Amino acid sequence: MSEKYFSETFKPRFCDTDALGHINNTMVPVWFEGARDPVFKWFMPELDLSQWKLILAKIDATFHGQMYYEQPMEIRTYVGRIGGSSFDIYQELWQDGNKCASGTAVMVYFCYEKQASLKIPTEIKNTMQEYLFSSD
Amino acid sequence: MSEKYFSETFKPRFCDTDALGHINNTMVPVWFEGARDPVFKWFMPELDLSQWKLILAKIDATFHGQMYYEQPMEIRTYVGRIGGSSFDIYQELWQDGNKCASGTAVMVYFCYEKQASLKIPTEIKNTMQEYLFSSD
Amino acid sequence: MSEKYFSETFKPRFCDTDALGHINNTMVPVWFEGARDPVFKWFMPELDLSQWKLILAKIDATFHGQMYYEQPMEIRTYVGRIGGSSFDIYQELWQDGNKCASGTAVMVYFCYEKQASLKIPTEIKNTMQEYLFSSD
Amino acid sequence: MSEKYFSETFKPRFCDTDALGHINNTMVPVWFEGARDPVFKWFMPELDLSQWKLILAKIDATFHGQMYYEQPMEIRTYVGRIGGSSFDIYQELWQDGNKCASGTAVMVYFCYEKQASLKIPTEIKNTMQEYLFSSD
Repeated sequence: MSEKYFSETFKPRFCDTDALGHINNTMVPVWFEGARDPVFKWFMPELDLSQWKLILAKIDATFHGQMYYEQPMEIRTYVGRIGGSSFDIYQELWQDGNKCASGTAVMVYFCYEKQASLKIPTEIKNTMQEYLFSSD
Repeated sequence: MSEKYFSETFKPRFCDTDALGHINNTMVPVWFEGARDPVFKWFMPELDLSQWKLILAKIDATFHGQMYYEQPMEIRTYVGRIGGSSFDIYQELWQDGNKCASGTAVMVYFCYEKQASLKIPTEIKNTMQEYLFSSD
Repeated sequence: MSEKYFSETFKPRFCDTDALGHINNTMVPVWFEGARDPVFKWFMPELDLSQWKLILAKIDATFHGQMYYEQPMEIRTYVGRIGGSSFDIYQELWQDGNKCASGTAVMVYFCYEKQASLKIPTEIKNTMQEYLFSSD
Repeated sequence: MSEKYFSETFKPRFCDTDALGHINNTMVPVWFEGARDPVFKWFMPELDLSQWKLILAKIDATFHGQMYYEQPMEIRTYVGRIGGSSFDIYQELWQDGNKCASGTAVMVYFCYEKQASLKIPTEIKNTMQEYLFSSD
């Protein structure tokens, strides 16, 4: 069974390191948010900032191993859970063949004007289904 | 019953905002790590970077409400759990009377040279006990 | 002759360091911008983001000495030059009695709607005069 | 006459924006430093952090136009000046066909142990010559 995910690759920068000589942990939420762009586009194809419809409810990140300056990184972005108006995005950070970090972002489809959550449309749910993470 | 915690106050900066007009969520792990300095000092009183003895295993952050530019913030740092060699630091971010974010960092007392976890000394455990968060 | 400036003090964070063990240089523009808040308020007392009237034209930063984690820092903010619609803000970063960095931000009083620069009002110029840096 | 430069492309992230809806200016020094990696490698081919031999003396950045979220960016890195032990790196940030920012970093080839500047070797000077910026 093939597994579908969004892949983003980039190179960590010198200023991403800290005094212990590795990448500082606070970069991981930054990179994970950056790699959620394709998810934002499901709900807002034009990424119109004045019509934003997503709220971030919670994030977590687990650190499995050290991350290093200069070696390319890949972030793999999956759907972790599909709810009625909320959903989880599950992400992994890979460097040099190692899964260095993983984490989940709980997001809510939301109308800022009405201050109310919205039902995720069926067509978006169908797309989400394709990216559903299976730990097998 | 009085509750003991470390309090750090600071002012969010303009560049901490994002295009939605509020503080970007990725600042929260940065601020929480910054406010864990007193915890670092329990284990390394001189904060000697060449003798660092703590590993960050996991972080999470829950977002309870919007955070705004310019209004002072306070981070309250508690102990969430005391284990044998690992422990949880629980933190809250307050702004203008509202708890805007909260989160837990799972840390491990660790010897980098031996690549092995260390037992938390009793005197540090006793100090930790004083800062233990009680949700009552 | 007494010299007037805005003073902001804060504590650098662990994640502000880099793998060389000191504070990374890219933090200096972040801190300098953060310390320009009182300047922003001259032009926009409410800091209303929808009515922003300042443009940043240029920044520079000179590094005089290493900056270290944990030791408190002070940023001193002066006016460097008063023009018709543009002006310079000159800033110094002090740590442990040493001037570690200094820099100038060239700003323009500007109307985004008309896409045209505005004349700095006389009362603001008078205030600026009080904060004018003299290198004597 | 052909012009040689290092080109790095990347995608700005949502958290790089600020409340005015564009990319915040403080990202430019971060991106410029990140794009100086090939320059670091001239002096330290292995990028060995324990043998670092470059000091950053000064940076500046001029902002020519707004930078936007999501649109790919390119940084072009040139040599601006070749001195005895110091040199300038000149960089431009391009987005959507516009030069949005440019800046110069003054660097010094330096021995941290002896706390003394070093002469730039001839072979590195020859390589630098190839990347010399000509404004024609």
